[in-house]
Amino acid sequence: MNWGDALIILGIDPGLATMGWGVIESDGSRHRLIQYGTLGTPAGQPVPVRLRAIYSGVQQLISTYRPDDIVFEELFFARNVTTALNVGAARGVALLAAAQYTENLYEYTPMQIKQAVVGFGKAEKRQVQMMVKMLLGLSEVPRPDDAADGLAAAITHAHSARQRQLFKIQ
Amino acid sequence: MNWGDALIILGIDPGLATMGWGVIESDGSRHRLIQYGTLGTPAGQPVPVRLRAIYSGVQQLISTYRPDDIVFEELFFARNVTTALNVGAARGVALLAAAQYTENLYEYTPMQIKQAVVGFGKAEKRQVQMMVKMLLGLSEVPRPDDAADGLAAAITHAHSARQRQLFKIQ
Repeated sequence: MNWGDALIILGIDPGLATMGWGVIESDGSRHRLIQYGTLGTPAGQPVPVRLRAIYSGVQQLISTYRPDDIVFEELFFARNVTTALNVGAARGVALLAAAQYTENLYEYTPMQIKQAVVGFGKAEKRQVQMMVKMLLGLSEVPRPDDAADGLAAAITHAHSARQRQLFKIQ
Repeated sequence: MNWGDALIILGIDPGLATMGWGVIESDGSRHRLIQYGTLGTPAGQPVPVRLRAIYSGVQQLISTYRPDDIVFEELFFARNVTTALNVGAARGVALLAAAQYTENLYEYTPMQIKQAVVGFGKAEKRQVQMMVKMLLGLSEVPRPDDAADGLAAAITHAHSARQRQLFKIQ
């Protein structure tokens, strides 16, 4: 395969306790897994310390994988105000680290991701995971869920091709 | 006056469009205004660019005033989800810049600030502004509102003395 025109895409599922991420290479139709994982911060630590850890964690991911595009799963708003605030702050510092590196920042809603990966906007989490496994030719479903979500966001972006500009973070 | 034991306090009223701030020096009962202002980012710019500007703006405030303590007015949650997300992200990057400098980070609710500054938790904005003017011995009310709110947060912290630990951001 010729990967000459391929993009390196970093997908991020933002969170304070666990931020899932996945890096793929894609030419739009063929995708290759590069790496996936999570950035976790312990609940016992003060939030400011956790934000610092997330910020430098995302910086490290970026300097390791040098992605062309960085893609966020849009936050689904938590019921609890404190949680929403902290998850919003975690997304903010991840977005800052990304914005310091590139202008190529995109965001997709959970429904858009399900639509792109499974073909059905109300698909179950399990179906998304099975499709991520299949599309990347993996032998197992990527774990934990947050990492699979990061990969699903990256695949969604790989598929979005010409409509990509619509999803740029404004 | 001997300001030997005085604290330099930076108060911040977080926001994406306008972040108010105020710096005071206080020994707990006497306060002195150092400076106040706002950090604004234009609505036409992409949010990631605005977050970068807020982050470096807060870094510059910190390196200019070298505050002992940094105090945030707790976000009052917006009705609109997009607004809440963006204001949450703005608070997040301000908190990150602060956390990279000190562990002395505090947060007070709007009601706690009104209680501390006016003596009544449901005081009007105008009453808070008049008290900020009086307590700092200013000839005019600080403008805009966001800057006065940053100063009010700093004064609240100056008054909180021994209970301060209760308001540390965890």
